[in-house]
Amino acid sequence: MITISLEEIHSWERFYRANFINCLSGFKSVSLIGTKSKEGVPNLAVFSNIVHLGADPALVGFINRPKAAAPDTIRNIEDTAVYTINHIHSEMIQQAHQTSARYDSSVNEFDAVGLTMLWRNDCNAPFVTESRIQYSVKLANIIPIPANETWLVIGYIESVYLAKDLREKDGILPLEKYGTVTSLGLSSYYETKHIINLPYAKP
Amino acid sequence: MITISLEEIHSWERFYRANFINCLSGFKSVSLIGTKSKEGVPNLAVFSNIVHLGADPALVGFINRPKAAAPDTIRNIEDTAVYTINHIHSEMIQQAHQTSARYDSSVNEFDAVGLTMLWRNDCNAPFVTESRIQYSVKLANIIPIPANETWLVIGYIESVYLAKDLREKDGILPLEKYGTVTSLGLSSYYETKHIINLPYAKP
Repeated sequence: MITISLEEIHSWERFYRANFINCLSGFKSVSLIGTKSKEGVPNLAVFSNIVHLGADPALVGFINRPKAAAPDTIRNIEDTAVYTINHIHSEMIQQAHQTSARYDSSVNEFDAVGLTMLWRNDCNAPFVTESRIQYSVKLANIIPIPANETWLVIGYIESVYLAKDLREKDGILPLEKYGTVTSLGLSSYYETKHIINLPYAKP
Repeated sequence: MITISLEEIHSWERFYRANFINCLSGFKSVSLIGTKSKEGVPNLAVFSNIVHLGADPALVGFINRPKAAAPDTIRNIEDTAVYTINHIHSEMIQQAHQTSARYDSSVNEFDAVGLTMLWRNDCNAPFVTESRIQYSVKLANIIPIPANETWLVIGYIESVYLAKDLREKDGILPLEKYGTVTSLGLSSYYETKHIINLPYAKP
Protein backbone atom coordinates (compact mmCIF):
# COMPACT_ATOMS: atom_id res chain seq x y z
CA MET A 1 0.00 0.00 0.00
CA ILE A 2 0.95 3.65 -0.38
CA THR A 3 1.73 5.26 2.99
CA ILE A 4 1.11 8.98 3.50
CA SER A 5 2.45 10.36 6.77
CA LEU A 6 1.10 13.31 8.71
CA GLU A 7 4.38 15.10 8.00
CA GLU A 8 3.78 14.72 4.27
CA ILE A 9 0.19 15.96 4.63
CA HIS A 10 1.46 19.00 6.52
CA SER A 11 3.89 19.76 3.70
CA TRP A 12 1.15 20.01 1.07
CA GLU A 13 -0.23 23.21 -0.42
CA ARG A 14 -3.38 24.35 1.39
CA PHE A 15 -6.01 23.49 -1.26
CA TYR A 16 -4.40 20.15 -2.11
CA ARG A 17 -4.52 19.20 1.59
CA ALA A 18 -8.10 20.47 1.97
CA ASN A 19 -9.29 18.39 -0.98
CA PHE A 20 -7.51 15.24 0.19
CA ILE A 21 -8.57 15.39 3.85
CA ASN A 22 -12.12 16.36 2.96
CA CYS A 23 -12.41 13.34 0.63
CA LEU A 24 -10.85 10.94 3.13
CA SER A 25 -13.85 11.02 5.48
CA GLY A 26 -16.13 9.64 2.74
CA PHE A 27 -19.23 10.55 0.79
CA LYS A 28 -21.28 13.24 2.47
CA SER A 29 -24.85 14.27 2.97
CA VAL A 30 -25.30 17.60 1.20
CA SER A 31 -28.32 19.90 1.50
CA LEU A 32 -29.35 23.54 1.33
CA ILE A 33 -30.08 25.25 4.64
CA GLY A 34 -32.57 28.11 4.53
CA THR A 35 -32.75 30.80 7.22
CA LYS A 36 -33.99 34.38 7.69
CA SER A 37 -32.07 37.08 9.55
CA LYS A 38 -33.71 39.11 12.30
CA GLU A 39 -33.65 42.02 9.81
CA GLY A 40 -35.74 39.84 7.47
CA VAL A 41 -33.10 38.92 4.85
CA PRO A 42 -33.47 35.33 3.58
CA ASN A 43 -30.29 33.26 3.40
CA LEU A 44 -29.53 30.01 1.62
CA ALA A 45 -26.30 28.04 1.93
CA VAL A 46 -25.08 24.59 0.95
CA PHE A 47 -23.83 22.40 3.79
CA SER A 48 -22.19 19.04 3.26
CA ASN A 49 -21.41 18.00 6.83
CA ILE A 50 -24.89 16.98 7.91
CA VAL A 51 -25.16 14.13 10.36
CA HIS A 52 -27.97 11.95 11.65
CA LEU A 53 -28.02 12.07 15.46
CA GLY A 54 -31.05 10.05 16.48
CA ALA A 55 -34.66 9.21 15.66
CA ASP A 56 -36.33 9.54 19.06
CA PRO A 57 -36.31 12.48 19.47
CA ALA A 58 -35.75 13.13 15.76
CA LEU A 59 -32.50 15.09 15.66
CA VAL A 60 -30.19 16.28 12.91
CA GLY A 61 -26.81 17.99 13.20
CA PHE A 62 -24.53 19.93 10.90
CA ILE A 63 -21.06 21.41 11.19
CA ASN A 64 -20.78 25.17 10.75
CA ARG A 65 -17.30 26.44 9.92
CA PRO A 66 -15.71 29.14 12.12
CA LYS A 67 -18.02 32.14 12.42
CA ALA A 68 -15.47 34.46 10.80
CA ALA A 69 -15.55 32.28 7.64
CA ALA A 70 -19.27 31.44 7.51
CA PRO A 71 -21.28 33.83 9.68
CA ASP A 72 -24.76 34.12 8.17
CA THR A 73 -26.47 30.76 8.68
CA ILE A 74 -25.37 30.25 12.28
CA ARG A 75 -26.16 33.85 13.26
CA ASN A 76 -29.64 33.59 11.78
CA ILE A 77 -30.23 30.31 13.62
CA GLU A 78 -29.02 31.84 16.89
CA ASP A 79 -31.40 34.75 16.34
CA THR A 80 -34.50 32.89 15.14
CA ALA A 81 -34.00 29.26 16.32
CA VAL A 82 -35.52 27.88 13.10
CA TYR A 83 -34.18 26.67 9.75
CA THR A 84 -35.06 24.47 6.81
CA ILE A 85 -33.05 21.65 5.24
CA ASN A 86 -33.65 20.94 1.56
CA HIS A 87 -32.28 18.03 -0.47
CA ILE A 88 -30.40 18.64 -3.72
CA HIS A 89 -31.15 16.68 -6.89
CA SER A 90 -28.96 16.53 -9.98
CA GLU A 91 -30.76 19.29 -11.90
CA MET A 92 -30.08 21.87 -9.15
CA ILE A 93 -26.42 21.14 -8.31
CA GLN A 94 -25.02 24.23 -10.02
CA GLN A 95 -27.36 26.61 -8.18
CA ALA A 96 -26.81 24.81 -4.87
CA HIS A 97 -23.02 24.94 -5.20
CA GLN A 98 -23.16 28.63 -6.12
CA THR A 99 -24.64 29.42 -2.67
CA SER A 100 -21.17 28.65 -1.26
CA ALA A 101 -19.85 31.93 -2.71
CA ARG A 102 -19.16 34.64 -0.14
CA TYR A 103 -22.15 36.85 -0.73
CA ASP A 104 -22.63 39.85 1.54
CA SER A 105 -25.10 39.31 4.39
CA SER A 106 -27.52 41.71 2.67
CA VAL A 107 -27.80 39.42 -0.39
CA ASN A 108 -30.65 36.95 -0.76
CA GLU A 109 -28.91 33.87 -2.22
CA PHE A 110 -32.19 32.56 -3.63
CA ASP A 111 -32.21 35.52 -6.03
CA ALA A 112 -28.45 35.43 -6.58
CA VAL A 113 -28.33 31.78 -7.67
CA GLY A 114 -31.79 31.35 -9.20
CA LEU A 115 -33.71 29.21 -6.73
CA THR A 116 -37.24 29.92 -5.52
CA MET A 117 -38.27 30.67 -1.95
CA LEU A 118 -41.21 28.78 -0.51
CA TRP A 119 -42.77 30.22 2.66
CA ARG A 120 -45.08 28.11 4.77
CA ASN A 121 -47.40 29.56 7.37
CA ASP A 122 -45.96 27.80 10.36
CA CYS A 123 -42.26 28.37 9.61
CA ASN A 124 -40.17 31.54 9.86
CA ALA A 125 -37.50 30.27 7.44
CA PRO A 126 -37.70 29.76 3.67
CA PHE A 127 -37.82 26.36 1.96
CA VAL A 128 -36.46 25.70 -1.53
CA THR A 129 -39.33 25.16 -3.97
CA GLU A 130 -37.19 23.10 -6.36
CA SER A 131 -36.18 20.63 -3.63
CA ARG A 132 -38.10 17.32 -3.59
CA ILE A 133 -37.47 16.59 0.09
CA GLN A 134 -37.70 19.48 2.56
CA TYR A 135 -37.96 19.63 6.33
CA SER A 136 -38.13 22.27 9.02
CA VAL A 137 -35.87 22.20 12.06
CA LYS A 138 -36.07 23.86 15.49
CA LEU A 139 -32.75 24.66 17.17
CA ALA A 140 -31.80 22.40 20.10
CA ASN A 141 -28.16 23.32 20.90
CA ILE A 142 -25.08 24.83 19.34
CA ILE A 143 -22.00 23.01 20.63
CA PRO A 144 -18.53 24.52 20.16
CA ILE A 145 -15.76 22.26 18.82
CA PRO A 146 -12.62 23.72 20.37
CA ALA A 147 -10.16 21.72 18.22
CA ASN A 148 -10.80 23.97 15.21
CA GLU A 149 -13.38 26.58 16.24
CA THR A 150 -16.20 24.96 14.28
CA TRP A 151 -19.71 24.39 15.66
CA LEU A 152 -22.06 21.44 15.83
CA VAL A 153 -25.56 22.84 15.30
CA ILE A 154 -28.22 20.43 16.58
CA GLY A 155 -31.91 20.68 15.82
CA TYR A 156 -35.22 18.90 16.29
CA ILE A 157 -36.81 17.78 13.03
CA GLU A 158 -40.34 19.18 12.75
CA SER A 159 -42.44 18.94 9.56
CA VAL A 160 -41.32 16.95 6.51
CA TYR A 161 -42.43 17.64 2.92
CA LEU A 162 -42.04 15.12 0.09
CA ALA A 163 -42.65 15.86 -3.61
CA LYS A 164 -43.97 12.31 -3.99
CA ASP A 165 -44.73 9.64 -1.43
CA LEU A 166 -42.11 7.00 -2.23
CA ARG A 167 -41.76 5.66 1.34
CA GLU A 168 -41.24 1.93 1.53
CA LYS A 169 -43.32 -0.19 3.89
CA ASP A 170 -40.69 -0.19 6.65
CA GLY A 171 -40.25 3.62 6.61
CA ILE A 172 -37.20 3.66 4.34
CA LEU A 173 -37.06 6.77 2.16
CA PRO A 174 -35.30 5.66 -1.07
CA LEU A 175 -33.40 8.89 -1.76
CA GLU A 176 -32.11 7.67 -5.13
CA LYS A 177 -35.69 7.67 -6.42
CA TYR A 178 -35.92 11.38 -5.54
CA GLY A 179 -32.58 12.02 -7.29
CA THR A 180 -30.93 13.22 -4.05
CA VAL A 181 -27.19 13.55 -4.61
CA THR A 182 -24.21 12.97 -2.33
CA SER A 183 -21.03 15.06 -2.33
CA LEU A 184 -17.33 14.40 -1.97
CA GLY A 185 -14.69 16.84 -0.84
CA LEU A 186 -15.18 20.50 -1.63
CA SER A 187 -16.54 20.30 -5.13
CA SER A 188 -17.70 16.88 -6.41
CA TYR A 189 -21.28 15.65 -6.66
CA TYR A 190 -22.47 12.09 -7.22
CA GLU A 191 -25.62 10.14 -7.96
CA THR A 192 -26.11 6.78 -6.26
CA LYS A 193 -27.13 3.28 -7.21
CA HIS A 194 -28.61 0.88 -4.68
CA ILE A 195 -26.53 -2.23 -3.99
CA ILE A 196 -28.17 -4.05 -1.09
CA ASN A 197 -30.44 -3.71 1.92
CA LEU A 198 -29.36 -5.90 4.82
CA PRO A 199 -31.42 -7.14 7.79
CA TYR A 200 -30.74 -6.12 11.39
CA ALA A 201 -27.55 -7.99 12.31
CA LYS A 202 -27.49 -10.53 15.15
CA PRO A 203 -24.44 -12.35 16.58
CA MET B 1 -46.39 17.96 -1.79
CA ILE B 2 -47.02 15.38 0.92
CA THR B 3 -46.85 16.90 4.41
CA ILE B 4 -45.75 14.76 7.35
CA SER B 5 -46.16 16.43 10.72
CA LEU B 6 -44.11 15.81 13.84
CA GLU B 7 -47.26 14.43 15.47
CA GLU B 8 -47.56 11.84 12.71
CA ILE B 9 -43.87 10.91 13.05
CA HIS B 10 -44.36 10.45 16.81
CA SER B 11 -47.27 8.11 16.15
CA TRP B 12 -45.18 5.69 14.06
CA GLU B 13 -43.87 2.33 15.21
CA ARG B 14 -40.28 2.60 16.47
CA PHE B 15 -38.42 0.92 13.57
CA TYR B 16 -40.52 2.66 10.92
CA ARG B 17 -39.66 6.02 12.50
CA ALA B 18 -35.97 5.10 12.88
CA ASN B 19 -35.71 4.15 9.21
CA PHE B 20 -37.48 7.28 8.00
CA ILE B 21 -35.62 9.80 10.16
CA ASN B 22 -32.28 8.14 9.53
CA CYS B 23 -32.83 8.36 5.75
CA LEU B 24 -34.03 11.96 5.87
CA SER B 25 -30.59 13.36 6.73
CA GLY B 26 -29.16 11.98 3.47
CA PHE B 27 -26.48 9.60 2.21
CA LYS B 28 -23.85 8.88 4.83
CA SER B 29 -20.17 8.20 5.09
CA VAL B 30 -19.80 4.64 6.36
CA SER B 31 -16.56 3.05 7.58
CA LEU B 32 -15.23 0.41 9.95
CA ILE B 33 -13.60 1.66 13.15
CA GLY B 34 -10.92 -0.57 14.65
CA THR B 35 -9.84 -0.35 18.30
CA LYS B 36 -8.18 -2.48 20.99
CA SER B 37 -9.32 -2.69 24.59
CA LYS B 38 -6.91 -2.14 27.47
CA GLU B 39 -7.23 -5.90 28.08
CA GLY B 40 -5.97 -6.44 24.52
CA VAL B 41 -9.20 -7.50 22.79
CA PRO B 42 -9.51 -6.11 19.23
CA ASN B 43 -12.84 -4.56 18.29
CA LEU B 44 -14.31 -3.66 14.92
CA ALA B 45 -17.58 -1.80 14.38
CA VAL B 46 -19.34 -0.14 11.47
CA PHE B 47 -20.13 3.56 11.90
CA SER B 48 -22.18 5.55 9.45
CA ASN B 49 -22.24 8.96 11.08
CA ILE B 50 -18.72 10.08 10.21
CA VAL B 51 -18.22 13.77 9.56
CA HIS B 52 -15.42 15.89 8.11
CA LEU B 53 -14.51 18.63 10.58
CA GLY B 54 -11.55 20.40 9.03
CA ALA B 55 -8.33 19.98 7.07
CA ASP B 56 -5.90 22.13 9.08
CA PRO B 57 -5.53 20.50 11.54
CA ALA B 58 -6.85 17.35 9.81
CA LEU B 59 -9.82 16.32 11.94
CA VAL B 60 -12.55 13.74 11.63
CA GLY B 61 -15.58 13.18 13.84
CA PHE B 62 -18.10 10.41 14.37
CA ILE B 63 -21.25 10.02 16.43
CA ASN B 64 -21.23 7.23 19.02
CA ARG B 65 -24.65 6.14 20.23
CA PRO B 66 -25.41 6.17 23.98
CA LYS B 67 -22.81 4.17 25.88
CA ALA B 68 -25.40 1.70 27.17
CA ALA B 69 -26.27 0.76 23.56
CA ALA B 70 -22.78 0.84 22.00
CA PRO B 71 -20.09 0.67 24.70
CA ASP B 72 -17.02 -1.01 23.18
CA THR B 73 -15.61 1.41 20.60
CA ILE B 74 -15.92 4.54 22.73
CA ARG B 75 -14.56 2.82 25.86
CA ASN B 76 -11.54 1.53 23.94
CA ILE B 77 -10.89 5.01 22.53
CA GLU B 78 -11.18 6.57 25.98
CA ASP B 79 -8.69 3.99 27.27
CA THR B 80 -6.15 4.00 24.43
CA ALA B 81 -6.72 7.32 22.58
CA VAL B 82 -6.14 5.67 19.20
CA TYR B 83 -8.32 4.11 16.49
CA THR B 84 -8.36 3.28 12.79
CA ILE B 85 -10.96 4.18 10.17
CA ASN B 86 -11.28 1.84 7.19
CA HIS B 87 -13.37 2.38 4.05
CA ILE B 88 -15.87 -0.23 2.90
CA HIS B 89 -16.06 -1.39 -0.72
CA SER B 90 -18.88 -3.36 -2.27
CA GLU B 91 -17.28 -6.81 -1.83
CA MET B 92 -17.06 -6.38 1.97
CA ILE B 93 -20.49 -4.89 2.78
CA GLN B 94 -21.92 -8.06 4.34
CA GLN B 95 -18.99 -8.51 6.74
CA ALA B 96 -18.95 -4.79 7.58
CA HIS B 97 -22.69 -4.74 8.33
CA GLN B 98 -22.38 -7.86 10.48
CA THR B 99 -20.08 -5.96 12.90
CA SER B 100 -23.20 -4.04 13.98
CA ALA B 101 -24.48 -7.14 15.81
CA ARG B 102 -24.29 -6.95 19.61
CA TYR B 103 -21.29 -9.15 20.21
CA ASP B 104 -20.00 -9.51 23.77
CA SER B 105 -17.01 -7.28 24.62
CA SER B 106 -14.82 -10.39 24.77
CA VAL B 107 -15.47 -11.20 21.07
CA ASN B 108 -13.05 -10.13 18.34
CA GLU B 109 -15.38 -8.99 15.53
CA PHE B 110 -12.67 -9.52 12.91
CA ASP B 111 -12.89 -13.27 13.61
CA ALA B 112 -16.65 -13.23 14.06
CA VAL B 113 -17.40 -11.62 10.68
CA GLY B 114 -14.43 -12.86 8.62
CA LEU B 115 -12.25 -9.79 8.13
CA THR B 116 -8.48 -9.72 8.62
CA MET B 117 -6.58 -7.66 11.19
CA LEU B 118 -3.61 -5.65 10.02
CA TRP B 119 -1.23 -4.39 12.72
CA ARG B 120 1.26 -1.67 11.97
CA ASN B 121 4.25 -0.93 14.17
CA ASP B 122 3.35 2.61 15.05
CA CYS B 123 -0.35 2.07 15.83
CA ASN B 124 -1.99 0.38 18.82
CA ALA B 125 -5.26 -0.33 16.96
CA PRO B 126 -5.98 -2.81 14.16
CA PHE B 127 -6.59 -1.86 10.54
CA VAL B 128 -8.77 -3.89 8.17
CA THR B 129 -6.59 -5.66 5.58
CA GLU B 130 -9.42 -5.85 3.03
CA SER B 131 -10.04 -2.09 3.12
CA ARG B 132 -8.50 -0.08 0.26
CA ILE B 133 -8.36 3.22 2.16
CA GLN B 134 -7.28 3.13 5.81
CA TYR B 135 -6.16 5.81 8.25
CA SER B 136 -5.11 6.06 11.86
CA VAL B 137 -6.62 8.61 14.22
CA LYS B 138 -5.50 10.05 17.57
CA LEU B 139 -8.24 11.11 19.97
CA ALA B 140 -8.73 14.88 20.33
CA ASN B 141 -11.98 15.26 22.35
CA ILE B 142 -15.16 13.42 23.18
CA ILE B 143 -18.03 15.89 23.33
CA PRO B 144 -21.36 14.91 24.95
CA ILE B 145 -24.57 15.68 23.05
CA PRO B 146 -27.11 16.21 25.82
CA ALA B 147 -30.18 16.17 23.55
CA ASN B 148 -30.02 12.38 23.19
CA GLU B 149 -27.01 11.16 25.21
CA THR B 150 -24.89 10.47 22.12
CA TRP B 151 -21.24 11.52 21.77
CA LEU B 152 -19.22 13.34 19.14
CA VAL B 153 -15.81 11.66 19.06
CA ILE B 154 -13.20 13.94 17.46
CA GLY B 155 -9.77 12.82 16.34
CA TYR B 156 -6.64 14.00 14.57
CA ILE B 157 -5.94 12.14 11.32
CA GLU B 158 -2.45 10.65 11.39
CA SER B 159 -1.16 8.21 8.74
CA VAL B 160 -3.14 7.37 5.59
CA TYR B 161 -2.80 4.13 3.59
CA LEU B 162 -4.08 3.71 0.04
CA ALA B 163 -4.25 0.41 -1.87
CA LYS B 164 -3.42 2.33 -5.05
CA ASP B 165 -2.38 5.92 -5.60
CA LEU B 166 -5.38 7.34 -7.48
CA ARG B 167 -5.04 10.90 -6.17
CA GLU B 168 -5.90 13.57 -8.70
CA LYS B 169 -3.59 16.50 -9.27
CA ASP B 170 -5.50 18.83 -6.95
CA GLY B 171 -5.52 16.33 -4.05
CA ILE B 172 -8.99 14.93 -4.74
CA LEU B 173 -9.31 11.28 -3.77
CA PRO B 174 -11.86 9.79 -6.21
CA LEU B 175 -13.50 7.34 -3.82
CA GLU B 176 -15.64 5.77 -6.55
CA LYS B 177 -12.47 4.42 -8.17
CA TYR B 178 -11.68 2.61 -4.91
CA GLY B 179 -15.24 1.24 -4.77
CA THR B 180 -15.97 3.05 -1.46
CA VAL B 181 -19.69 2.79 -0.72
CA THR B 182 -22.12 5.18 0.95
CA SER B 183 -24.99 4.12 3.21
CA LEU B 184 -28.56 5.21 3.78
CA GLY B 185 -30.61 4.73 6.91
CA LEU B 186 -29.94 1.67 9.04
CA SER B 187 -29.43 -0.95 6.39
CA SER B 188 -28.95 0.23 2.78
CA TYR B 189 -25.67 0.48 0.88
CA TYR B 190 -25.00 2.28 -2.39
CA GLU B 191 -22.32 2.70 -5.02
CA THR B 192 -21.81 6.13 -6.55
CA LYS B 193 -21.39 7.65 -9.98
CA HIS B 194 -19.64 10.95 -10.53
CA ILE B 195 -21.83 13.73 -11.94
CA ILE B 196 -19.76 16.92 -11.85
CA ASN B 197 -16.85 18.69 -10.21
CA LEU B 198 -17.47 22.42 -9.77
CA PRO B 199 -14.96 25.23 -9.31
CA TYR B 200 -14.68 27.32 -6.14
CA ALA B 201 -17.76 29.56 -6.23
CA LYS B 202 -17.45 33.35 -6.34
CA PRO B 203 -20.26 35.92 -6.09
